[in-house]
Amino acid sequence: MKRSLKIATLSALALAAATAAYAQVKPEDAIRARQSIMRVVALNFGPLSAMAQDKIPYNKDLFVASATRLEAVWSMDASRFFVKGTDKPVAGSNIAGFTDVKPEVWNNPLKFKDAFDDNTAAIAKLAAAARSGDEAAMKSAVGGVGKACKGCHDDFKVK
Amino acid sequence: MKRSLKIATLSALALAAATAAYAQVKPEDAIRARQSIMRVVALNFGPLSAMAQDKIPYNKDLFVASATRLEAVWSMDASRFFVKGTDKPVAGSNIAGFTDVKPEVWNNPLKFKDAFDDNTAAIAKLAAAARSGDEAAMKSAVGGVGKACKGCHDDFKVK
Repeated sequence: MKRSLKIATLSALALAAATAAYAQVKPEDAIRARQSIMRVVALNFGPLSAMAQDKIPYNKDLFVASATRLEAVWSMDASRFFVKGTDKPVAGSNIAGFTDVKPEVWNNPLKFKDAFDDNTAAIAKLAAAARSGDEAAMKSAVGGVGKACKGCHDDFKVK
Repeated sequence: MKRSLKIATLSALALAAATAAYAQVKPEDAIRARQSIMRVVALNFGPLSAMAQDKIPYNKDLFVASATRLEAVWSMDASRFFVKGTDKPVAGSNIAGFTDVKPEVWNNPLKFKDAFDDNTAAIAKLAAAARSGDEAAMKSAVGGVGKACKGCHDDFKVK
């Protein structure tokens, strides 16, 4: 996604402000928050992806519930929990004890924000399709979300 | 919550069926799923509790978003991920490496189910209050959810 210099500057300021607001979060809590949000996103994306690929039977209720829940959870904005300094496991903490984030998140914050925004747009499209009830549109929109997820993971998550 | 023997028997059957459906989930995935759902629940309950106790300023948009998201995430039914045999950390897995579940979950499944159901009811009440827009009802309903959370944690979660 291209953006003008002006928009890029405003985004950088907004990002810095948002990061500052969450800088008080303990590193282990930030890691746990973002990992939990992402895992809940994945738990909802799983059946959507399986239905779109006909790996499990299409079930409209399950599709709509999963897509709208995905949108709700994504709106928690996990990007705010990628606080600087949380690229290493936290010794002695009760949490995961690992993080598979790449330093690229902090080296290229605008690119990271763009990747996040791409998925926000793809998820909005998916939720709108789910609300429309058009099965073909619903299944097709799943691919857009999968692509946006993968795009971000390729650049910012260790394989 | 009291229940007749008949209802208790039916519930036990339903619970066994539900558990069987998820028995194929890998232990580390089950632990991760339930911990992630609970953490996302907590991330949404946090601001609700703070607003109800006037620790942060009341913000209707934040309240409604958090309450409806809480209801959506709770509907994922984390109880199905309390699969038998997942009371110990999974060695060598990438996940949390710990679980603070008490064996009481499996020793007394009906009591566990009741505790879960109590919170489902409390959360439904909270979400309904949020949709009503009545600030006093909204704040009051938060207490019911907090009480149900605590009740379950007291019995089934290591302190």
